[in-house]
Amino acid sequence: MTTTADKNNHQGSIILFPVPMSDGPVTDVLPELNLKLLLKVKYFVVENIRSARRFLRRAHHDIDIDALHFTELNEHTAPGDVPAMLTPALHGHDIGVLSEAGCPAVADPGALLVDHARRHGLRVIPLVGPNSIIMALMASGFNGQSFTFHGYLPIEAGARTAALKEMERAAQHRGQTQIFIEAPYRNARLMQALCRTLSPSTMLCVASDITGPAESIVTLPVQAWLKKLSASPDVIGKVPSIFLFNRQQ
Amino acid sequence: MTTTADKNNHQGSIILFPVPMSDGPVTDVLPELNLKLLLKVKYFVVENIRSARRFLRRAHHDIDIDALHFTELNEHTAPGDVPAMLTPALHGHDIGVLSEAGCPAVADPGALLVDHARRHGLRVIPLVGPNSIIMALMASGFNGQSFTFHGYLPIEAGARTAALKEMERAAQHRGQTQIFIEAPYRNARLMQALCRTLSPSTMLCVASDITGPAESIVTLPVQAWLKKLSASPDVIGKVPSIFLFNRQQ
Repeated sequence: MTTTADKNNHQGSIILFPVPMSDGPVTDVLPELNLKLLLKVKYFVVENIRSARRFLRRAHHDIDIDALHFTELNEHTAPGDVPAMLTPALHGHDIGVLSEAGCPAVADPGALLVDHARRHGLRVIPLVGPNSIIMALMASGFNGQSFTFHGYLPIEAGARTAALKEMERAAQHRGQTQIFIEAPYRNARLMQALCRTLSPSTMLCVASDITGPAESIVTLPVQAWLKKLSASPDVIGKVPSIFLFNRQQ
Repeated sequence: MTTTADKNNHQGSIILFPVPMSDGPVTDVLPELNLKLLLKVKYFVVENIRSARRFLRRAHHDIDIDALHFTELNEHTAPGDVPAMLTPALHGHDIGVLSEAGCPAVADPGALLVDHARRHGLRVIPLVGPNSIIMALMASGFNGQSFTFHGYLPIEAGARTAALKEMERAAQHRGQTQIFIEAPYRNARLMQALCRTLSPSTMLCVASDITGPAESIVTLPVQAWLKKLSASPDVIGKVPSIFLFNRQQ
């Protein structure tokens, strides 16, 4: 792969580097190309500087971290500060973008940087890496030809119930797989809400610790989850999880 | 990673192996773990036997293909033939699942095999690999917190226009990114339909040959695509492409 900078153009590229979602060898979840390109990049825009440094040391234990430039872009960043983050690329340097975990610019503020990069005509290069949405969908057994990712559901009970009812209609009528996430400490509350709100025959998949040592991807009818919950209310635990449901096939 | 078979359980696992979407070194798009696990698997369920053999030789040029067992699962397969494909796993052998390109069981009949595997309580292991939906979304600059993948749009003009109008409402009202694919030989016709149907200010991203040498991911307002089309009606060519749109941010 040649980046814009390689081509001797005067602008650098924006390279989107996925980050592992679990411990263990980075070569289990990242292609060799990513690790090679990481060594060429001196400017990084990252969701969290500490976890970015930790990842870079895991990827290359002898990397010279002090020679690298980091700028943070996360939910605390003022949108007006984002355009200036592209300055290195406008001067010919590639910029690496790193999330805390998974693929950057999917469910984090990196998308705003990519949007500005596009306006400047900068090349944006997405690299392969772990993504919980696609990996959970692959292993769920659900329809992958039609699906919606909703991010987080509303926290307020009434709004969440209304959202789930609308999502269940899309599943029933169109067989569209419904996918969403929750903060791990709210897993138990979410599971109760799902089991109370969804039809007993709706199929619910819970995918936890994807790529990790406790990976668990389980698809069962809501009525079977209800039984599990009555035996053990915190059946999932506080493990990072992603939730999917669809009608019976 | 330990598979169920490694654990000395009596059942094998179903391992979902992504396949590159373009030529070039497999290590550019697949982690080393995938290549290691491929060598341990003797039973494969594949979308197309010829392309599966070609991929296995690209991954390991000295692999003994004749020692491997292949069963085809694609749109010509009778659904009643799928359960028997799990027999090797029930006898303790891992089964590898391969699409023609990209991640298995997302937009191909592999999902049916996974669904049956779940009913048998078999472990299903999704591996990391290239996925055009997520990679295009990352590089589009669009909202990744809320998106829908629609597969193929209706071919009939009236039904397609109605579908696009409904999708544009979800983009306008909720900022939900709309994603879909088309057979490459219909790219030009689809682009004309998009430019005729969508609002001139809607942002349209076309991502072509992702991970390939001609990779191109371009986001422009529909009115700018219209100008390109009037200069060159076949602006995308017959390259495998994925299409995304959303409202102006």
